[in-house]
Amino acid sequence: MDKVLTLDSINPNMIKIEYAVRGPIVERALQIEKELRNGDKKSFGEVVKCNIGDCHATGQKCITFVRQVTALATFPHLLENKSFPEDTKSRAKDLLAACSGSSVGSYSHSLGLEVVRRDVSKYIHQRDGIESNWENIFLACGATEAVKMLLEMISTTGRDSERAGVMIPIPQYPLYSATNSEYNNFQINYYLDESDNWSLSADELKRALTSVKGQCIPKAIVIINPGNPTGQVLPQKCMEDIIKFAVDNRLMLIADEVYQQNVYQPDKYPWASFKKVLSNMGPSYSGKLELASLMSCSKGYMGECGYRGGYCELLNFDPAVQAQLYKALSARLCPPLMGQVALDAIVNPPRPGEPSYSLFVKERDDVLSALKDKADITYSALNSMPNMSCNPVQGAMYAFPRIHLPPKAIQEAKVGLTKH
Amino acid sequence: MDKVLTLDSINPNMIKIEYAVRGPIVERALQIEKELRNGDKKSFGEVVKCNIGDCHATGQKCITFVRQVTALATFPHLLENKSFPEDTKSRAKDLLAACSGSSVGSYSHSLGLEVVRRDVSKYIHQRDGIESNWENIFLACGATEAVKMLLEMISTTGRDSERAGVMIPIPQYPLYSATNSEYNNFQINYYLDESDNWSLSADELKRALTSVKGQCIPKAIVIINPGNPTGQVLPQKCMEDIIKFAVDNRLMLIADEVYQQNVYQPDKYPWASFKKVLSNMGPSYSGKLELASLMSCSKGYMGECGYRGGYCELLNFDPAVQAQLYKALSARLCPPLMGQVALDAIVNPPRPGEPSYSLFVKERDDVLSALKDKADITYSALNSMPNMSCNPVQGAMYAFPRIHLPPKAIQEAKVGLTKH
Repeated sequence: MDKVLTLDSINPNMIKIEYAVRGPIVERALQIEKELRNGDKKSFGEVVKCNIGDCHATGQKCITFVRQVTALATFPHLLENKSFPEDTKSRAKDLLAACSGSSVGSYSHSLGLEVVRRDVSKYIHQRDGIESNWENIFLACGATEAVKMLLEMISTTGRDSERAGVMIPIPQYPLYSATNSEYNNFQINYYLDESDNWSLSADELKRALTSVKGQCIPKAIVIINPGNPTGQVLPQKCMEDIIKFAVDNRLMLIADEVYQQNVYQPDKYPWASFKKVLSNMGPSYSGKLELASLMSCSKGYMGECGYRGGYCELLNFDPAVQAQLYKALSARLCPPLMGQVALDAIVNPPRPGEPSYSLFVKERDDVLSALKDKADITYSALNSMPNMSCNPVQGAMYAFPRIHLPPKAIQEAKVGLTKH
Repeated sequence: MDKVLTLDSINPNMIKIEYAVRGPIVERALQIEKELRNGDKKSFGEVVKCNIGDCHATGQKCITFVRQVTALATFPHLLENKSFPEDTKSRAKDLLAACSGSSVGSYSHSLGLEVVRRDVSKYIHQRDGIESNWENIFLACGATEAVKMLLEMISTTGRDSERAGVMIPIPQYPLYSATNSEYNNFQINYYLDESDNWSLSADELKRALTSVKGQCIPKAIVIINPGNPTGQVLPQKCMEDIIKFAVDNRLMLIADEVYQQNVYQPDKYPWASFKKVLSNMGPSYSGKLELASLMSCSKGYMGECGYRGGYCELLNFDPAVQAQLYKALSARLCPPLMGQVALDAIVNPPRPGEPSYSLFVKERDDVLSALKDKADITYSALNSMPNMSCNPVQGAMYAFPRIHLPPKAIQEAKVGLTKH
């Protein structure tokens, strides 16, 4: 008998989703790993998966402070244990006091524990020197969940030219194309300029938007900074141009800033949040851009991907719209409590004078310095290979090299194509 | 200047979502709690929130074994600690060995760690006495995420009569109505029979389906057993009727079985999984029903809501459809690792002879017996009140009482209504 659910009867948007990061190449890598474990002989002994920024998977050590706080919150009997520093205990106690029934096994408020949202707002305040209202911050199951909710919120139920247009960078992080497919948004590609360190110009943004005129209702622009998978840190002038473009063209800005702590040459290529750049542009812009900024436990020096902790700060949103988003988030009950606890340990790290401070600083700096070294090695190695070139990795965790194919190879491929 | 995003421009399906469990009454309760903390004088000193099955929030103790395994996985230095029993250490070691980089900070496979999916399949096998294929199991951020993915998958992009119809019980758990709104599904209400312990008849299912003829494309039926918020355990005969109805009417069955361990009179009202009942019905039915069964860390005796651990077992799905669902899940990367670890500790609990066994059994039975007592107290108390009546709480964590309003009160309300 025929199935109720077939490719012809399920949601066609789901079928349209493409997600190469976890696609057939990864499935094949997992299969090869299994074959190696089963003793199959191959010309290599190990699979190194570089499809995703999975820090701990590639040997990066976790930050002791983060794990101590989360372990204490998990099993409060450990509060009696003398080997845990006092500052980890006081953090865990504060977090447990904020949990219903003093347990991470209870649900939190659907936007996250108030204490964590307040600590996030303090982190942002300290980072930017600008006030942050904790009620504009919601916690999520990784920054991923926040992205999905935002792109779902702006989607329309319209077809064809009534679909919501979302500008995304090319090269991109495929979460954006996948989620646009999922919610039937119209993807508007803008191209990063490889010849200018993957920067982008207002001209290119204008070109991209003009090219889709009449085909959709443009509503949002996604900027990933530091870049994924391109590793650039956007210059301030470029960010100002983007903001002007977004305001002039009435686009909401989704700022994917999850790599904000992965900046390898801060003197030469300093990173600034879109919120700060917007604020510096003064009142003619600062109140006019609807900005959603994303941050995560998964990257930076901590790399705690598995905890699925993340936050989103909303700026200048219509309160009625924000209330709708918050209501929609409530149906999934709450973000994972352990992700919230880990996020809190990250935005509220040990302070000078606290017992965990020196170890924390050492571990953090060791990771960041190793990542910087790897960025340099990757850059040099790629550029030392024949027919390869690559921009410097200024931030994030990725290099996006160019492979220069010899003209004869291209010619041969063309001949091959016409044969098929 | 006008906002880009307004109630007129955002996704209208999001606006349609209603989620009373986290709605205005809860917001008001949170506000009152704050007022009490701030020293406001009221005629009561405490708010007891009964809007949701949040076990630890109401004082239920966590299961030591679950927390020890999760603490060890969080902070592996504790593997040296002598106060942790050996079986908690061996469980944590096995789980860590399955994590990339031996860290819960890495991403897992997007469907969950293979070892956890295998342990889930063993749990199901032991529960039902029927084989379970671990590859048909995917882990989720609570059962909630699985429900959302299933209802998104069956949704159509059609309008009006081309929308997917989803049968849900009334009274219901509002996740279902909220998610149907979110994905533009057509909600088909079937009514549970309060006069027969919230049971349901094939006649009522037929009535409900017939009543929407031509208004949608019926695709799925949701059954919550044990019932939320109605507390019944469905008799086997009733489950057989539901299965026949679903097969005859070509409906996928979503079996919300998250309260499967909350059954208070198993001799009188035994619980069985839909998978087992289906299997017992023999080959004329067993291969014909597309069945998705949900389970969670959040209920049962463990009540670990905050971990957001859950699983879904798929039966008889078209492999191509299952592959699409799995692909869509990959875009959100992976379920929270700590939820996966907690779920594993629950489906693979201490065995007789292991050091944690006796404490585990005591803690589990204490919780279940306290819940049974509370169910009895609630039932008796509600039935002892004038103008109140309530069915026995056979399972789950809820009582759904009837308030018999005096005719004069109803008359008065009618008069009041006409005045407005």
